[in-house]
Amino acid sequence: MSDFGARLAAQVAERGRLCVGVDPHPQILQEWGLTVDAAGVAECAQRMVEALGDLVAVFKPQSALFEAYGSAGIGVLERFLAAADKAGAMVIMDAKRGDIGSTMAGYARAYLSNDSPLAADALTVSPYLGFGSLTPAIQLAEATGRGLYVLCRTSNPEGGQVQLAEAGGRSVAQMMVDEVNTANGDRDPAPFGLVIGGTLPTLDVDLTGFTGSILVPGIGAQGGTVEGLTELFGAAAGRVLPTSSREIMAAGPDPDSLRRAVVALTAELG
Amino acid sequence: MSDFGARLAAQVAERGRLCVGVDPHPQILQEWGLTVDAAGVAECAQRMVEALGDLVAVFKPQSALFEAYGSAGIGVLERFLAAADKAGAMVIMDAKRGDIGSTMAGYARAYLSNDSPLAADALTVSPYLGFGSLTPAIQLAEATGRGLYVLCRTSNPEGGQVQLAEAGGRSVAQMMVDEVNTANGDRDPAPFGLVIGGTLPTLDVDLTGFTGSILVPGIGAQGGTVEGLTELFGAAAGRVLPTSSREIMAAGPDPDSLRRAVVALTAELG
Repeated sequence: MSDFGARLAAQVAERGRLCVGVDPHPQILQEWGLTVDAAGVAECAQRMVEALGDLVAVFKPQSALFEAYGSAGIGVLERFLAAADKAGAMVIMDAKRGDIGSTMAGYARAYLSNDSPLAADALTVSPYLGFGSLTPAIQLAEATGRGLYVLCRTSNPEGGQVQLAEAGGRSVAQMMVDEVNTANGDRDPAPFGLVIGGTLPTLDVDLTGFTGSILVPGIGAQGGTVEGLTELFGAAAGRVLPTSSREIMAAGPDPDSLRRAVVALTAELG
Repeated sequence: MSDFGARLAAQVAERGRLCVGVDPHPQILQEWGLTVDAAGVAECAQRMVEALGDLVAVFKPQSALFEAYGSAGIGVLERFLAAADKAGAMVIMDAKRGDIGSTMAGYARAYLSNDSPLAADALTVSPYLGFGSLTPAIQLAEATGRGLYVLCRTSNPEGGQVQLAEAGGRSVAQMMVDEVNTANGDRDPAPFGLVIGGTLPTLDVDLTGFTGSILVPGIGAQGGTVEGLTELFGAAAGRVLPTSSREIMAAGPDPDSLRRAVVALTAELG
């Protein structure tokens, strides 16, 4: 399997730059006329992949909203992963995992090994235990041609508390940019990316020379706009993988409406 | 259901201060003569709860090592939770979850709601997105009498990168101490605790007045000693919930050996 960065670039070239969040919140299930249980989540996930699997570049399921239904919910996630793969869509598992040593290696095996039922193309990870704690995930991702997105700078109001704390004159968020840059080496497009919020008032990290992709959640419903992306990210805007969940899912469950919502937003992203 | 802090205190008074990690690493499975798959993990978890469920105060299963086997592994975790509850042991789910808004609420429902198959007595959470991002978990824990352990200061070598970064003259780790203190209010024992490493050279956070419990992993195999705990935590040592996994599990799978290992370490903890 080729490198995640190269596969993502090829996929985006073919299908456009939109990542569609698969977030079966209780409210969405109700809006779609589904039950708020594992069966409702299964129906929702299946309709998403049937309607959009041949159209969107990347799906981003939110693990929490499957975990909320225990092993039955995780079973739904496994079937979703298999169906997305069959339809030709890539999947970034949004699970924000983070731990140390052999426990981090366990998370890596769950989401980044070839023989796991939960294997995705990439995984979001959280560096509260230090970037170095993610090493087992980086190593397995390198070995299996998968990617990682490291939480860097989020746009929720309380995000700056940790992310803008400083050591040696650098913010924690900037340290993550620099660490991921180092892990990527001279690859372009590179396999390791960052999660950065799309509704920050200003971009307070320096992305100069960054060659990974930048996962930006919340385009549409959470207030992020396409023009805002260009303004916020400047020269790095071409690296952005904009993600929309609610704006797309609110158009469902009718498959044609879902597809129209994706086509419209993809066109807007250029 | 009474408050987690009060329940934990009563449990510790009756059974002693030891928390036993349930970490079915591949290596442990092999040492126990089990297969490295969901069936092996199921056998391992069942033997742990059968041997120790009426003896130990608290179990701490490591979610990663169940997730590595997908929905089958999560099914094992559900059965373990039910069996531990039936045997009278409390469970802290070590999953280090963290997200924002309605996604954090999804994690809270998964691990802290009364009707979830994955509900535990408490959950470990990660504050990279800011302490405020954990609010949905705090609210649900308050409503259901459950607890949270917030990652604060870990003893892995790379832990200081984020945890010792500073803003306004305070380290990120100290901010977490102060935030959890505020969430606990004047309760003592309080429901919200901290995760702090037991092998730090010095305690670089101020725990004065802290009334939650302090989950300290790695007693025994990872180098933490009982004497070291008193030395490191000083006046706060009485708040520590020492956790041992490998030292206990290495005594298995024989139930009597497992019990002897727990009794010996519990006695040492005083």
